[in-house]
Amino acid sequence: MPFEINKESIELLKELIEKESKSEVIKLMDDLHPADIAELMDDLTIEEAKFIYLLLDNEKASDVLVEIPDSDRRRFLKVLPPDIIASKFIEHMDSDDAADIVAELDEEVQKEVLNEIEDVEQAGDIVDLLEYEEDSAGGIMAKELVVVNENWTVATCLKEISAQAEEVDEIYYIYVVDDDEKLKGVLSLKKLILNRTSTKISNIYNADVKSVTTGTRQEEVAEIMDKYDLVAIPVVDDIGRLKGRITIDDVIDIVREEAEKDYQMVSGITGDVEPGDRVFEVLRARFPWLLIGLLGGILGAVVLSSHEDSLKTVTELAFFIPLIAAMGGNVGVQSSSIVVQSIASGVKDIESTSRKIFKEVSVALLTASIFATLIFIYNFFSQANMNLTYSVSLSLFIVILFASMFGTIIPLLLNRFKIDPALATGPFITTMNDILGLLIYLAVGKMFFGIL
Amino acid sequence: MPFEINKESIELLKELIEKESKSEVIKLMDDLHPADIAELMDDLTIEEAKFIYLLLDNEKASDVLVEIPDSDRRRFLKVLPPDIIASKFIEHMDSDDAADIVAELDEEVQKEVLNEIEDVEQAGDIVDLLEYEEDSAGGIMAKELVVVNENWTVATCLKEISAQAEEVDEIYYIYVVDDDEKLKGVLSLKKLILNRTSTKISNIYNADVKSVTTGTRQEEVAEIMDKYDLVAIPVVDDIGRLKGRITIDDVIDIVREEAEKDYQMVSGITGDVEPGDRVFEVLRARFPWLLIGLLGGILGAVVLSSHEDSLKTVTELAFFIPLIAAMGGNVGVQSSSIVVQSIASGVKDIESTSRKIFKEVSVALLTASIFATLIFIYNFFSQANMNLTYSVSLSLFIVILFASMFGTIIPLLLNRFKIDPALATGPFITTMNDILGLLIYLAVGKMFFGIL
Repeated sequence: MPFEINKESIELLKELIEKESKSEVIKLMDDLHPADIAELMDDLTIEEAKFIYLLLDNEKASDVLVEIPDSDRRRFLKVLPPDIIASKFIEHMDSDDAADIVAELDEEVQKEVLNEIEDVEQAGDIVDLLEYEEDSAGGIMAKELVVVNENWTVATCLKEISAQAEEVDEIYYIYVVDDDEKLKGVLSLKKLILNRTSTKISNIYNADVKSVTTGTRQEEVAEIMDKYDLVAIPVVDDIGRLKGRITIDDVIDIVREEAEKDYQMVSGITGDVEPGDRVFEVLRARFPWLLIGLLGGILGAVVLSSHEDSLKTVTELAFFIPLIAAMGGNVGVQSSSIVVQSIASGVKDIESTSRKIFKEVSVALLTASIFATLIFIYNFFSQANMNLTYSVSLSLFIVILFASMFGTIIPLLLNRFKIDPALATGPFITTMNDILGLLIYLAVGKMFFGIL
Repeated sequence: MPFEINKESIELLKELIEKESKSEVIKLMDDLHPADIAELMDDLTIEEAKFIYLLLDNEKASDVLVEIPDSDRRRFLKVLPPDIIASKFIEHMDSDDAADIVAELDEEVQKEVLNEIEDVEQAGDIVDLLEYEEDSAGGIMAKELVVVNENWTVATCLKEISAQAEEVDEIYYIYVVDDDEKLKGVLSLKKLILNRTSTKISNIYNADVKSVTTGTRQEEVAEIMDKYDLVAIPVVDDIGRLKGRITIDDVIDIVREEAEKDYQMVSGITGDVEPGDRVFEVLRARFPWLLIGLLGGILGAVVLSSHEDSLKTVTELAFFIPLIAAMGGNVGVQSSSIVVQSIASGVKDIESTSRKIFKEVSVALLTASIFATLIFIYNFFSQANMNLTYSVSLSLFIVILFASMFGTIIPLLLNRFKIDPALATGPFITTMNDILGLLIYLAVGKMFFGIL
């Protein structure tokens, strides 16, 4: 029966570690995929984790280390000497994972680890990768590739691939280069198998290959791979020389991260909150939005208190404060998240900005009319005071219009100035809409009630 | 110079179509990837699109049709006769895409199209696929696979693969089955190339293969492929027979969809809003949340009007209504979206529910204390009335506690009852928190001001 990850099995494992029953632990780990081991590491102490890492063979230990959360890895690597980090872990990783992990180390340790790596070529690859921006194609690519020269034959290729293939986990594509190492095209293993061994590569490769340059932003890489359904994409430098490749599994992580970032923004959380996080970390992630909310609330109180006399005279005005605030906030978030999503989905902007705004104005006018009418009908039958009925309807109409406009224009503006448009779905705009709503409501109310 | 998609080039294309310059249009389309053609279709009328589809060769036309948005495709296929749908499009698609598109057709047309497909085996595959639930592994898998028998040699394999490979675009894995078609394991092309032609497959395949059954939910498929970094996963039936495979590009779409659904829920939009949507569609997607917001606002007005006398006596109480409402709403959304995200990220639930709630209570208590203190300090120095200062602080404290609890418990409850927990980030809970906040605030206020 395979080891299943649940409370009981983890208790068992902890006991075995405590008793230092090495052979038993090894047997349990044998059945598990590195991703599963990484998952259960989450429930072990650093000492327990260390015990397991040392029992695993180097390949598997490295795979597990790549899979665990960044913060756990950082904590764990802190207790290991540089030579172990290099020989047990880094030397058995693909260059992209190795570079990511080396980048997480303190600068001093980084140098020591790099110097401990036996294979100088590998160390060089890692150093090269560290040069690139973290969120550029260069920063996420791996240097391991299967490359053939356009002048070779199928037979030479097969022989060369056998030699190269050892260090590459999976061969998705074989890249074809010229004598200057410039990317010419791509060749599938299928093509290689289906052709005679004497065929020249230049006759069978596919020159229509999508590539990105080392400086391409990772979001754009994800868009391109998603759009063209690619499992791997080659990365070239500015003069077209093949430098590395990016595989789809890294791209899924990018898609997920991007989506999570936007989600956290709209739900008012700063940064990642992971299930294992401690109270303080959760608190810190939630604090900023709440603080802005508090300041907005105080500002609201200031606005209302400056109208204290009106409120005293016409107390009924206070009844609809929550309604106006809620509607303004909701409409604003809706508008901006639609814009943010359309920007994030990478749809090319053929619909012009003016047309986009025209459409949003139409939606806003309709929405405002519908809800102003609904609240008018309700108040007409339930409120004795017609002035209140007029005030609420008219101000709701204006508030919805304003909130829609801000919600649409602000993310577009942010995007134009290369600022993350998702900021617009965050606390600032919502709070701004709340206050603006109050001001409009009070102004309209005063007008109808004929108070100054 | 390749054709670039922008306003001018689309104008040019439209002109060429108007003049029916077939050869010119064909030349422009030759340079473009199907995904690019799909993108520009968005700006053409149905008649213009039809003109282009008919000029493209069948393979490319089918690829384009698969890439365009569902609603456009449905509109377009409505104007085509069943025999064209079959011969021009369906016959040239992978079975999964074919089944998806046939499923979109009206039942009558569906039958006609299926009967028009010349290759009865293909039609049979499509019919088989249509049997599965749309969001199950069976519903998203393709029937095209490269399969070999465990008893074959490498030489037989290579020959068989050459025969099978024609209908499979890319070979990620070769699946190994026994004589009963039961999945035994997986073989990489790399292994095949690196071994002697006389080697028996049973000696070289990897038996440690992850698979899913036809009934597995698509979200779970995505989780498994993501966790184990797979580019394709085999799908088996309940007795282990190999039925199909799911490739990574479909999974990226699932990840994206899931993330979008949660995002839309928290930002108050129902269903997909696509950039090209018309005013009415956008309005419909936004209407439900706003309606709930309006009803919540009305309920708020009812609550406040039932305390009209208190508000008349102590008008200052009205000042902090927006603050209390905003903080309650924000805290609630934060709590529930953290829970929703941890459920969505598929992290196994080792942290027990009771521990989760204990942690949330700690965070809530701390948050409540901090913000109650902050507003106390502000009011202490700015408000003349100490009763107001006490009221606002104490009720903010209670409101934050309640909102955190609801925000945490409700998505957990929904999830236990197999309801999408993301509902908790939607309008109901936010509105409920608003009202609850008002009730608490007024009750506390009355207590301090000694009004009954």
